[in-house]
Amino acid sequence: MDNGFNFCLVTNECTTAKRLLAKKLNGFGYDSVQPTNIISPAPAACQYLLDNNLRPRLHVWDGVLEDFDPVMKKLNSEHRGTWQPNCLVVGDVMDKISRDYMDESLQTMLDCPEQVHIVSLGAGRYYKDSGRLRMDTGAYVSAFEYCLGVKAVVLGKPTGEFFNQALVKVGGKAEDTIMIGDDIVSDVGGAQNLGMRGFLVRTGKYKPSDETERGVKPDAVFDNLKDAIENIVNFSK
Amino acid sequence: MDNGFNFCLVTNECTTAKRLLAKKLNGFGYDSVQPTNIISPAPAACQYLLDNNLRPRLHVWDGVLEDFDPVMKKLNSEHRGTWQPNCLVVGDVMDKISRDYMDESLQTMLDCPEQVHIVSLGAGRYYKDSGRLRMDTGAYVSAFEYCLGVKAVVLGKPTGEFFNQALVKVGGKAEDTIMIGDDIVSDVGGAQNLGMRGFLVRTGKYKPSDETERGVKPDAVFDNLKDAIENIVNFSK
Repeated sequence: MDNGFNFCLVTNECTTAKRLLAKKLNGFGYDSVQPTNIISPAPAACQYLLDNNLRPRLHVWDGVLEDFDPVMKKLNSEHRGTWQPNCLVVGDVMDKISRDYMDESLQTMLDCPEQVHIVSLGAGRYYKDSGRLRMDTGAYVSAFEYCLGVKAVVLGKPTGEFFNQALVKVGGKAEDTIMIGDDIVSDVGGAQNLGMRGFLVRTGKYKPSDETERGVKPDAVFDNLKDAIENIVNFSK
Repeated sequence: MDNGFNFCLVTNECTTAKRLLAKKLNGFGYDSVQPTNIISPAPAACQYLLDNNLRPRLHVWDGVLEDFDPVMKKLNSEHRGTWQPNCLVVGDVMDKISRDYMDESLQTMLDCPEQVHIVSLGAGRYYKDSGRLRMDTGAYVSAFEYCLGVKAVVLGKPTGEFFNQALVKVGGKAEDTIMIGDDIVSDVGGAQNLGMRGFLVRTGKYKPSDETERGVKPDAVFDNLKDAIENIVNFSK
């Protein structure tokens, strides 16, 4: 943005690397969006691994592997290429799911002599893809939680861990920060839980009942993203 | 048994039909074992479906499909072949696991306009097969529980639901019934929870620490099954 505001785009998209997400948005006309402006679960998980000194087994879709380059480079240089993972990172692996793939991830964790961790790139139950219902990340994470007796840290809206990373990126205090989104619970509610303001937009998955019946009260409602941003810019003048 | 005792064999084997389990035991020299003497998760689940008037989607290994013949025949005759499942029966499906297979089971449940149920053929976390670690039924059941927001009924040791079926089969009161097994928690503890006596045998998975360190106190301990049975027979003379 060219109004002196810091911004970042917070998305739960966990099968596409932030570099390609930025490219896609540029293609839609959002020229000023850089990969560094994007918070998505994979880069957030990478940051979490670095912050907590964890060594991942990446049970994720190939499209987001590059988002883990920073932690993989660090570990490969520290350990000269061989190291024992102590943290299972679980994303939507789509067609990579097989009995062997699940079991290899489990085996890797059970081989670890230390306490293991699970980081999840989402907590969704299911979603629709080309008219077909698909089990989402949260379901497969449950399977690993059950086997390992460990509760996963979820990096995706609406978790505080995830919104915190967005706050760090925009460099502001929660009370000076506004989240704009079309999901009353995940976007607006999640941000409000951290002390940010949450603005709802009447686009995308918005339904009129969201304004009254979901137990979350948005700080403001706008017809679209443009209106919301113009209002913020004018208000701050 | 030819001593006037009723007996049944209670096993968590959930990939082989009871007909073949009996055949296998006959091959080991246990000539008097008939399929009707065996309680395993699949026939127990079939009985549970009949008792509770549930219509299954069978997410199970092909080897146990025949154990569900009674409920399938009943439903096919009642509904002339087309009916909407309202209960997901989850077993160890081994190499049948794929994204599509998981999603089809989920879709079938989400298509059901009524409250759906989950019946599980076990609650194991993982097991070893030919030196390889395998995720067990309990893990995949967790995934479905998470998606559907429903807690599974587990038909396998040590659940009360499962031991109850064994009690019905031997036709005795709990206090007149003895469970003999090598698993102090699953066999001995599970049976004791229902008011039966639990005898531990020092074979199979038995470890000396089982007698003192697992929080379950067996009513008696014997070196093997033969000793346990001889003791019961002699005692009752």
